[in-house]
Amino acid sequence: MITHGGDITMRPIGTIRTAYTETSSIPKGPGARHEAEGVLEIRPDLEPGLADIDGFSHLFVLWVFDRSEGADLVARPPCDDRAHGVFATRSPRRPNPIGLTVVRLLRREGRRLIVQGVDMLDGTPLLDIKPYLSSVPAADLRRGWLDEAEARQRAPD
Amino acid sequence: MITHGGDITMRPIGTIRTAYTETSSIPKGPGARHEAEGVLEIRPDLEPGLADIDGFSHLFVLWVFDRSEGADLVARPPCDDRAHGVFATRSPRRPNPIGLTVVRLLRREGRRLIVQGVDMLDGTPLLDIKPYLSSVPAADLRRGWLDEAEARQRAPD
Repeated sequence: MITHGGDITMRPIGTIRTAYTETSSIPKGPGARHEAEGVLEIRPDLEPGLADIDGFSHLFVLWVFDRSEGADLVARPPCDDRAHGVFATRSPRRPNPIGLTVVRLLRREGRRLIVQGVDMLDGTPLLDIKPYLSSVPAADLRRGWLDEAEARQRAPD
Repeated sequence: MITHGGDITMRPIGTIRTAYTETSSIPKGPGARHEAEGVLEIRPDLEPGLADIDGFSHLFVLWVFDRSEGADLVARPPCDDRAHGVFATRSPRRPNPIGLTVVRLLRREGRRLIVQGVDMLDGTPLLDIKPYLSSVPAADLRRGWLDEAEARQRAPD
């Protein structure tokens, strides 16, 4: 819903269940592996929207950093000792606190999607689910400061 | 901002400029190529958040389907003659009308990012920009009804 001033109001479509109750327990930074299983629980009234989703191996999950307050336009990520612009990071402290995670869909159980690769806190509000359709070839990717930070960590001076 | 009832209110961080003034002119469906250039115009107060973004070749762009009204939980996409659940499609008529597009960053000009691969209408509100860090290998992807629809189109009966 778009209000007069251009603000947009959204209502969560469900809740994400994970084993993470504290931010500090979520793996972060270069080499972090996101193998944890979790559950995307859709609101009962929206269950028809899940039809055919089980044909997809991977999903984009959009969610809310609901336990983050405020934004920093420039900040130092946990995996680097240098500060970067917020739009060049995955920081939760962003102007619109939306999280984006790619998960592997293991199976559907009614209105619950069992997925692998969660990196959000238990109870996180779910905003949207989309099918993951195609990838950018790895050879085409440049990853700016992240590649540089990883290189420095491999060869500390 | 999260209100008492669990709703979340967001304010656009900028505006997307494209050559598309009508939905019908945007390429859609299997084989559609998204090579069009566009511009992500960030609000002047948020420009510091773009620091270091030019090191990334690709970006996730989150935006609002601001000219779409209402949602269909089950609908027929333009590229198939069968209906599917909305969360298994990229339909604009979804409970939270957020769009997600992967673009290639061509260059930064101040608070304007010149990108390739836009598929949204001119004037679309921009919600967030995130660096694209890694891809799911193509060999690991299953794409459900979309693969089936493409196979039927290649071999019509």
